[in-house]
Amino acid sequence: MTERATSADSHAAAADAAGLAAADPTPSPTPCAARVDTVLRNLKAAGLSQMVVCDPRSIQYLTGAYVEPGERFLGLFVAPGQQPALVLNELFTAPADAACRILSFKDTDDPLALVAGLCDPEAPLGCDKNLPARFLIPLMERTAAAGFVLASQAVDDARALKDADERKRMRAASRTNDTAMARFRELVHEGVTEAEVAGQLEALYRRLGAQGHSFTPIVSFGANAADPHHEPDDTPLRDGDVVLFDVGCRQDDYCADMTRTFFFRSASEKQREVYEAVRRANEAARALVAPGVRFCDLDAAARTVIQEAGYGPYFTHRLGHQIGLDVHEPGDVSAVHDAPVQPGMTFSIEPGIYLPGEFGVRIEDLVLVTDEGCEVLNAYPRDLTVLE
Amino acid sequence: MTERATSADSHAAAADAAGLAAADPTPSPTPCAARVDTVLRNLKAAGLSQMVVCDPRSIQYLTGAYVEPGERFLGLFVAPGQQPALVLNELFTAPADAACRILSFKDTDDPLALVAGLCDPEAPLGCDKNLPARFLIPLMERTAAAGFVLASQAVDDARALKDADERKRMRAASRTNDTAMARFRELVHEGVTEAEVAGQLEALYRRLGAQGHSFTPIVSFGANAADPHHEPDDTPLRDGDVVLFDVGCRQDDYCADMTRTFFFRSASEKQREVYEAVRRANEAARALVAPGVRFCDLDAAARTVIQEAGYGPYFTHRLGHQIGLDVHEPGDVSAVHDAPVQPGMTFSIEPGIYLPGEFGVRIEDLVLVTDEGCEVLNAYPRDLTVLE
Repeated sequence: MTERATSADSHAAAADAAGLAAADPTPSPTPCAARVDTVLRNLKAAGLSQMVVCDPRSIQYLTGAYVEPGERFLGLFVAPGQQPALVLNELFTAPADAACRILSFKDTDDPLALVAGLCDPEAPLGCDKNLPARFLIPLMERTAAAGFVLASQAVDDARALKDADERKRMRAASRTNDTAMARFRELVHEGVTEAEVAGQLEALYRRLGAQGHSFTPIVSFGANAADPHHEPDDTPLRDGDVVLFDVGCRQDDYCADMTRTFFFRSASEKQREVYEAVRRANEAARALVAPGVRFCDLDAAARTVIQEAGYGPYFTHRLGHQIGLDVHEPGDVSAVHDAPVQPGMTFSIEPGIYLPGEFGVRIEDLVLVTDEGCEVLNAYPRDLTVLE
Repeated sequence: MTERATSADSHAAAADAAGLAAADPTPSPTPCAARVDTVLRNLKAAGLSQMVVCDPRSIQYLTGAYVEPGERFLGLFVAPGQQPALVLNELFTAPADAACRILSFKDTDDPLALVAGLCDPEAPLGCDKNLPARFLIPLMERTAAAGFVLASQAVDDARALKDADERKRMRAASRTNDTAMARFRELVHEGVTEAEVAGQLEALYRRLGAQGHSFTPIVSFGANAADPHHEPDDTPLRDGDVVLFDVGCRQDDYCADMTRTFFFRSASEKQREVYEAVRRANEAARALVAPGVRFCDLDAAARTVIQEAGYGPYFTHRLGHQIGLDVHEPGDVSAVHDAPVQPGMTFSIEPGIYLPGEFGVRIEDLVLVTDEGCEVLNAYPRDLTVLE
């Protein structure tokens, strides 16, 4: 159980508070330090002065260190005036420039003793919403803090507003997804099964420089596309089927997510009508995105188009979700979320129409809210396309 | 918020307790009912009379219903004399023959009110070790029970002893993994990168009838194999490299996991010496497996062989882990686990030697403990093999 001091991204505020001499008296905060400051401000507004973050992607966001601890404890303790402290099993290594100090433990040590040692027992502890019972209950039993309060919103609100570096990565991941879609459609031929197509996508993503999938890909043929969450199976492709790809890669740690629906060899009148309704719904919502517009307004804009086309009951899910280091981040694009969108937010616009036993169509793009309106991160065409 | 009664695997004990007439007064318990009975017995021995299980694979084990709820609540409430109750978001569907009743909720409902309604507030509630703070803290705040106690061991101990159906599936998954390994080695040629090879594995698994990977595959060339958890990257294959595959598929929901280490075009004296030490360590541990032998004895048997070969400090991890519906299940094969192995347990035997900057060798097989000794689930050869 040793303490390793490592930090390239040294936390200026913490250094000042601790009375340490800094080379530059007023350094610009690094991205991680600025993110931690935002979280501490959000915590303060919620009446909290300490928090343990355990979501691996939130820890990556705040420190630059990504660790998947499996069953082992991993926690980042943040409090004003201190450098963030990462409690990390020695089996894992954090990058040398991680923006935190490391409290290292062995499998035979008790990591919760380290967490308790960091806590102010007189103040309540903000808890990550994902902190598992096997860690939370023992922390409570040793009264490590004066109460335990859900506090993830302090981190989630910070993560929702992508900074310059994150925007760059979100753009790049979606560019790769655009390029990949052009190759995925070439995998389609008569008799090929959904599973055969799905199994080839990861290799193509990796060849394009991505780390792999950002989620299990959905490849649906014909009536299977009427289930929005269909898992690829042994269904073979037939003339007249829709071919739906809902796919995304992870690249430089950030997630892409896009859906395109094609037609194989022919498209019926009804298929064309449904496709055009979905395409116009996607377009209507994208056209509306700008700071101050509410998430529910976007959902309504798309839903109205589909209702007016007569397919309202067949658009069965929310319009979209926020996205970044995780493919689903808190804050739905839905009828029940009436907060306004803000510059730096990234989310999906993915209307669909699902006709059970017949077919389904979904068209999904990611958008990044800008000061003026939005930047659409996907450029892959949305015109009705019949594959031969 | 509706209650759907569904159960092919009706829980005889619960039906009796509720005074319901059963077609057969003494039916044989179905697999799920027998598993629930075991969990209830284990809970009773721990002084508990109610538990909420939230691990999706544990819920699948107890009901036959597998749901990945993402951020939404999913919990199975078990208590003596009641049919297990699955609190399930209506976005997901359980199979019609799931061995439980379903308490269904919408996104706008509060699922924890349903859980609280099931709990006896006068008794402590056993909690799944993975129950996240976002559900546990609100349950505590409404004092749904007289205390909250970690209770996953009641489920883990049941899951460790595979029943007849599970043994059949474990065998089949490992047979597929054997077949797949013979194809994976054919992907290897001069200049191919680890990532290019790794990207092709899933398609091969799917073609063999598996559902996909049971974990992210490890493909390591040369010095990269000295890191037991190396992630496939752009390293190209060169003459004289080791080629390490640590791979597994999921098939019929059960996990395979096997490691083989090959040599590309040639193997040096030192490589041969290290390989043979690892092969003999694997063999020594497998030969010892029988009911009553302790997990730590198996670890010691393999470790002694490697120590005597002079490579003790380079075998840096436990000998193995239990496996089933999850690729890592509780109960290590390690020096600190002194419980005896029991018939029906399945675990890995995976000694390795890791020489930093040079190469690494690991040979891993799954075993199933039988009444007499053990059945080795992998048949893929372990002889030193030079690929051309």
